[in-house]
Amino acid sequence: VRPSSSTADGLVDLLFGSEAVNAAVSDTAWLQAMLDVEAALAGAGADAGLVPSVAAEEIAVTCRDTMFDMASIGRRAVGAGNPAAPLVTDLIAAVSPATRPYVHMGATSQDIIDTSLSLLAQRALDAILIDLDAVAARCAVLAATHRETVMTARTLLQPAVPTTFGFKVTTWLVGVDEARAMLRRVRFERLAAQLGGAAGTLASLHDSGIEVLRGFARRLGLAEPLIPWHTDRTRVTELAASLGMLMGVLGKMARDITLLAQAGVAEVAEGEGPEHGTSSTLPQKQNPVRAVLILAAAERAPGLVGTAFHTMVQEHERATGAWHAEWETQRQLLSLAGGASQHAARLLEMLKVDAARMEQNLASGGGLLMAESLAGCLSSKVDRAAAQAMVRRCHEESAARHVSFAELVAHDPEVRQHLSDAEIASALDPLRYLGSTHELIRRAQDAHRAADVRS
Amino acid sequence: VRPSSSTADGLVDLLFGSEAVNAAVSDTAWLQAMLDVEAALAGAGADAGLVPSVAAEEIAVTCRDTMFDMASIGRRAVGAGNPAAPLVTDLIAAVSPATRPYVHMGATSQDIIDTSLSLLAQRALDAILIDLDAVAARCAVLAATHRETVMTARTLLQPAVPTTFGFKVTTWLVGVDEARAMLRRVRFERLAAQLGGAAGTLASLHDSGIEVLRGFARRLGLAEPLIPWHTDRTRVTELAASLGMLMGVLGKMARDITLLAQAGVAEVAEGEGPEHGTSSTLPQKQNPVRAVLILAAAERAPGLVGTAFHTMVQEHERATGAWHAEWETQRQLLSLAGGASQHAARLLEMLKVDAARMEQNLASGGGLLMAESLAGCLSSKVDRAAAQAMVRRCHEESAARHVSFAELVAHDPEVRQHLSDAEIASALDPLRYLGSTHELIRRAQDAHRAADVRS
Amino acid sequence: VRPSSSTADGLVDLLFGSEAVNAAVSDTAWLQAMLDVEAALAGAGADAGLVPSVAAEEIAVTCRDTMFDMASIGRRAVGAGNPAAPLVTDLIAAVSPATRPYVHMGATSQDIIDTSLSLLAQRALDAILIDLDAVAARCAVLAATHRETVMTARTLLQPAVPTTFGFKVTTWLVGVDEARAMLRRVRFERLAAQLGGAAGTLASLHDSGIEVLRGFARRLGLAEPLIPWHTDRTRVTELAASLGMLMGVLGKMARDITLLAQAGVAEVAEGEGPEHGTSSTLPQKQNPVRAVLILAAAERAPGLVGTAFHTMVQEHERATGAWHAEWETQRQLLSLAGGASQHAARLLEMLKVDAARMEQNLASGGGLLMAESLAGCLSSKVDRAAAQAMVRRCHEESAARHVSFAELVAHDPEVRQHLSDAEIASALDPLRYLGSTHELIRRAQDAHRAADVRS
Amino acid sequence: VRPSSSTADGLVDLLFGSEAVNAAVSDTAWLQAMLDVEAALAGAGADAGLVPSVAAEEIAVTCRDTMFDMASIGRRAVGAGNPAAPLVTDLIAAVSPATRPYVHMGATSQDIIDTSLSLLAQRALDAILIDLDAVAARCAVLAATHRETVMTARTLLQPAVPTTFGFKVTTWLVGVDEARAMLRRVRFERLAAQLGGAAGTLASLHDSGIEVLRGFARRLGLAEPLIPWHTDRTRVTELAASLGMLMGVLGKMARDITLLAQAGVAEVAEGEGPEHGTSSTLPQKQNPVRAVLILAAAERAPGLVGTAFHTMVQEHERATGAWHAEWETQRQLLSLAGGASQHAARLLEMLKVDAARMEQNLASGGGLLMAESLAGCLSSKVDRAAAQAMVRRCHEESAARHVSFAELVAHDPEVRQHLSDAEIASALDPLRYLGSTHELIRRAQDAHRAADVRS
Repeated sequence: VRPSSSTADGLVDLLFGSEAVNAAVSDTAWLQAMLDVEAALAGAGADAGLVPSVAAEEIAVTCRDTMFDMASIGRRAVGAGNPAAPLVTDLIAAVSPATRPYVHMGATSQDIIDTSLSLLAQRALDAILIDLDAVAARCAVLAATHRETVMTARTLLQPAVPTTFGFKVTTWLVGVDEARAMLRRVRFERLAAQLGGAAGTLASLHDSGIEVLRGFARRLGLAEPLIPWHTDRTRVTELAASLGMLMGVLGKMARDITLLAQAGVAEVAEGEGPEHGTSSTLPQKQNPVRAVLILAAAERAPGLVGTAFHTMVQEHERATGAWHAEWETQRQLLSLAGGASQHAARLLEMLKVDAARMEQNLASGGGLLMAESLAGCLSSKVDRAAAQAMVRRCHEESAARHVSFAELVAHDPEVRQHLSDAEIASALDPLRYLGSTHELIRRAQDAHRAADVRS
Repeated sequence: VRPSSSTADGLVDLLFGSEAVNAAVSDTAWLQAMLDVEAALAGAGADAGLVPSVAAEEIAVTCRDTMFDMASIGRRAVGAGNPAAPLVTDLIAAVSPATRPYVHMGATSQDIIDTSLSLLAQRALDAILIDLDAVAARCAVLAATHRETVMTARTLLQPAVPTTFGFKVTTWLVGVDEARAMLRRVRFERLAAQLGGAAGTLASLHDSGIEVLRGFARRLGLAEPLIPWHTDRTRVTELAASLGMLMGVLGKMARDITLLAQAGVAEVAEGEGPEHGTSSTLPQKQNPVRAVLILAAAERAPGLVGTAFHTMVQEHERATGAWHAEWETQRQLLSLAGGASQHAARLLEMLKVDAARMEQNLASGGGLLMAESLAGCLSSKVDRAAAQAMVRRCHEESAARHVSFAELVAHDPEVRQHLSDAEIASALDPLRYLGSTHELIRRAQDAHRAADVRS
Repeated sequence: VRPSSSTADGLVDLLFGSEAVNAAVSDTAWLQAMLDVEAALAGAGADAGLVPSVAAEEIAVTCRDTMFDMASIGRRAVGAGNPAAPLVTDLIAAVSPATRPYVHMGATSQDIIDTSLSLLAQRALDAILIDLDAVAARCAVLAATHRETVMTARTLLQPAVPTTFGFKVTTWLVGVDEARAMLRRVRFERLAAQLGGAAGTLASLHDSGIEVLRGFARRLGLAEPLIPWHTDRTRVTELAASLGMLMGVLGKMARDITLLAQAGVAEVAEGEGPEHGTSSTLPQKQNPVRAVLILAAAERAPGLVGTAFHTMVQEHERATGAWHAEWETQRQLLSLAGGASQHAARLLEMLKVDAARMEQNLASGGGLLMAESLAGCLSSKVDRAAAQAMVRRCHEESAARHVSFAELVAHDPEVRQHLSDAEIASALDPLRYLGSTHELIRRAQDAHRAADVRS
Repeated sequence: VRPSSSTADGLVDLLFGSEAVNAAVSDTAWLQAMLDVEAALAGAGADAGLVPSVAAEEIAVTCRDTMFDMASIGRRAVGAGNPAAPLVTDLIAAVSPATRPYVHMGATSQDIIDTSLSLLAQRALDAILIDLDAVAARCAVLAATHRETVMTARTLLQPAVPTTFGFKVTTWLVGVDEARAMLRRVRFERLAAQLGGAAGTLASLHDSGIEVLRGFARRLGLAEPLIPWHTDRTRVTELAASLGMLMGVLGKMARDITLLAQAGVAEVAEGEGPEHGTSSTLPQKQNPVRAVLILAAAERAPGLVGTAFHTMVQEHERATGAWHAEWETQRQLLSLAGGASQHAARLLEMLKVDAARMEQNLASGGGLLMAESLAGCLSSKVDRAAAQAMVRRCHEESAARHVSFAELVAHDPEVRQHLSDAEIASALDPLRYLGSTHELIRRAQDAHRAADVRS
């Protein structure tokens, strides 16, 4: 069996994937998963009394221990249109003549491929969720630690009002927790066994179809579907959508980090040691490499997700192409999600947060970020339009006279007519203008803990 | 207020939308929804003691009764980058001076736009779900009625084994029920109010942020989010994904119908009367127009869904473009889903099913569709490989001698050596080779009824 | 005729479209274009002697002057699956009985719709190209003006080496010129008339098919296709792809502008006067609104382009849905491109460039951006590894000792051992490290002028 | 060097790719292409007098003969964010100390990666074009051979009028020729060398930048770009778009073939021998496997193309993720196109065309397909509305009385009042209702030959 297309020794496999998930979705893993599926089918057949237990046992052993020739299977897959058919041929040849009638009993190629891909997804999601648990946990810690670390909130990439780094991270946390919940639901409720026979009727299993289906699903740890889903592909598309959602959530976090890491901002940096993110010719460089690779995944995922939605339109009882288009789409999404999740876990683990620089950047606006706050205070004294006009005038004068907004306000006669020095100081203090951030952080932390208890 | 871009008098609005959903997502409806949001905000402010109730009342009345100038708002939207800002300006101008300070209190443009789009989606989904309830109900009836209507199952567009029309429709039913469950979940749990102020901190509402958020959501019948979701866009993407899922499920049904309606197949037809699907120059034409229009929607949806996933990567506290890209994407998906659902409801309501033709097409294969069944019966007498070889030989001889497979089998000495006449007849009888279809249909019907009780 | 779904009085039509292009692709314009097509068809029929010239004349006049009922056509479009069929019915009814046989002669609905959409695209592209000519011209001016305006080049959002604003704009210019060339090619060579009759054979025109096709195309100013393209959709997809390419190119420019406009960078700003990009509550705000709206278009286009590629798979002689999916996809892309082009033209026209701030930001790195330059100079004295090690050590020492890189280098004994003061000064001078930018700018300007002469 | 992720021994590599193209875009090939690029860079440096020729020679030999450790490079790629950086490190270590300063001179990682991917695309396109030449040639032969093979034209999957198989294939031919022209243009004009140094200015090459760029491009057989295209990605997107166009064109052909191969139609079949497209359990099966695999490629391509359009929005002088997202997108599209082209070539080479069945299916409509023809003939005697009404009545009566349309028409008193027996026979003769198909086929053949002469 050749090393898979997704193992760690590829040129870019670790840029866009993780070792664990790449291994879980590799060709080698897929071939083995198809064999696991055949073994489970024989076992379920034995449970239902259709397969002698000695035959089921021989099939299981063969599926576990025999070396199949992937290159040969890959070549013969073309004539059949899928890799399951030649594998079944080889499996039949690999067992004793007495056992042969019981191999692949009641199943069609699609049953083997769909179920084996459910297994791949299951194993890949388990690896992804380990990294995501770490991501969420680290977000929760950062959110708590930096609950009071004031920084500039930026809307449309322009400074807006103060916020805290803890609150910013809380938005990441909530997104990651939402994605984890979706992925867990798909993992435990939607990844299903598929068994329908030639066209979904389970005809060749006669009266035992449902019984075999049930045992088959149980043995593989997959959900038992209501009916075969050979051309109802909601499950496959839900997997793709939940992975796309994850990549979107991680992409948002990575986008923030690349922006915060800009030289002129410098509020965070990837902190992975001297060799990380450097350039051979530009010694000053500290590239946010992990964030960039997460963004690359977030850039690639939506096209693949779109394909997954497109492939839902499947003809009759097996599709001419749309089904086949799912396989690589699904494996690529799992691989990308594996890479993005691992990068995110490492990135957050080592993230350097420069609270002093955050405060300094906030202050560098000369208090302008407190304009809304000041207008609010003034509104309790004069009407809102007048308050806003006063603030706007202060802003214009401070620009024209090249003094900071804060300084100008502190000495502005009109402002001072309405507000005391203490009131002005308070109105210009970012720490007093954090609104509900504390409570919102607490809500998110509570929900995060509750979700972790439930899962 | 000009007639919306989505009302029923457009050139193609009823091809790709429904009157009800187009109205729900029209520019007119959106403008009104933004006003509804401002009214609810004032009301929630009054509940929290921040807004005098007379001011809240004046705002509510103004939002309900005043005619705003959409063309002017649309023009001024460019400078602000969104239509909420000029609307707020006009709303402030429309109320009395004493009330002005209380308009839009604590909110930013994004709060108004996000929340108003949640309202639009809510109203559109309600209309869509009415049609989908009808689609599912009709599928359930067809599945029950045609439980024993045998027909050809086709895999890769080639005849495979017998199935029943009832079982084929059951695959549609399960898909539609899955989509309905997703849409309902989005409708009742995920469409949320958005209120965060300038950057999500609710700072200008001081200590009352959470209280106002809660009242605001409650007044609008929208979910109260854990924290503001200004740049955590999972909710928006879930809406898009669930609509895409629906379009995929309906597209699968429509694809089957166009294929079954082919002249050489003729097992179903759209049954909407003499003018429907005709051509002026080709009098024999009976085009499956509704199915075609559903397929057009299914063709367009995935690109829009892909966009929705892409827009998740939003910078800091408000995005430069990705947020703005959501608005039309979302409205177009709702509109397309409205059209596809209505077409599906009408199509199924009037669908002509030709059970006789189904049986005739099944028989036209000369019994070849029973090859698997025959091989299965023979397998109980000889080993599987021998059984399959025998069937294959019969197939080849029947082709070479231009007799039907069934006839050849009935007189084949080798087959008759192993099977009695009755056994041969039984092996070739489609009605005896329907596997678990009855039980599978029953399972789907039970789940369908249970889902309807729950909802 | 109702105001179109795309005219200027919508809520967001001017955010995502331009008045000119919206008008060109509106429902009203489409209806008229279909009538123009019918008139041209009758004219071509008259040229070929198949239609009495009086009939052709009556058809032309009716198509020009009659008010058709769009709402009614829109309603009846559902039964036919397209709006051309009911329009033809109404057109037949609107002419005298003697003329009726000559209406729509030889054509099918698809001929009318495809050709009318070619017309819409032609008119929309003409409007788009006017804005793009302005964009390119303005880029050329900015590139020339700022040929020596040094600034920081940024890779992976980190400072890299010096560049000039003129060179940065040259990358925009080349992209815009490439997009213009593609759009012009589509406009003049690929937008074609479609005439094939019921299934592309031109059968009902007997021996005159090609002659009528030729006259039909000529009268409309559209390309005459080699053969009817009813299910060869490369032309449609090329239009979509070239529009997507444009949006990508403009999106790149807009992305740069939003990043350069960040408060901590402040090297450019949209300069459209006091009301543009402001916020009612945040007086300091100067949002890059045009750039944001261009980015929104660039965010939406790829999904639509993907749909256009998907719709190429069209069945037999007319597709079941993929064809219908083209119409709105194409119109939306044109509209988005119209908006993005107009925003780009306005934005560049008014763009404020702060050359002093560019120089200041460049200098703020303390000379670190000249590290590569210094290493290069040192490489002529010691080997490259040693040179790079020296530079790296200087970087580390400057960070540790909190002095600027330039200052440290100027006094570093090891550096001074190899380089004279003048050599060090030269190595640290950004103006001496602009490489081939002058020549590259000249090449792009030459090509730009040559392209404009050709077009 | 490990076997690449794309070689022929994978599980599904030959389903979705071809051996030749997979090899051309494999990790191994990519690694070698990066080395080829480094060698060409050194050579160009030597041409310009910047690199001693002995050093350039040593670099070239090392790049050709040394075994680099891909697994190690792949692991270290993570820290750098791309595989070129560690490869350069290893290449420097592999040459003698005196040569080291001349390795990678003037270049940045992006130069190496972009140029090497141009080389990969060039080699892959050469392989693809060989298959496409065969596809087009075979289409041309089929079109000529079957110029008079009448068959049913089908619109919206319903019978419309007669056409010929030769004309249907001509639509395929024109599409394939359009795609070939685009791919050739990209191959010869748009695949370019990329050389810009750290940020596109070519600064570290001082005055020799353009000269080195020119020699570099010439040595690699790639186009010399106007300016570096590090963040002007039109070239990359044009490659993706032209591949997507190809997949759309082949997908249309494959879709037609799967539909024509349906059991109830049976007008064509894949003809690749007894093992091709069979099923182990359903002996009658003859699945159109090649067509299905082409459709799978056509299903996957648009999502990847959409991603390629999305990645155009690249920040400043190197993008944070959008650039990295290109690499696999591009390689996957090339691989898919390789597979689809090879499948298409094999499929057409062996395609079985059943002209007799085509004629029989045409006749099976009982002459209904000649309804338009008959109405046309009658229109020369009575007015068009009357003619159409007569035809419609005949259609209805034939259905009601269960006689064929042709038979009914032949005896219909009203029809016979206007048309002689000979005229009726002529009106109902498909061979007399083929319109301009002969001339259209000739036009396409002429253009095809002319294109082949030019290329």
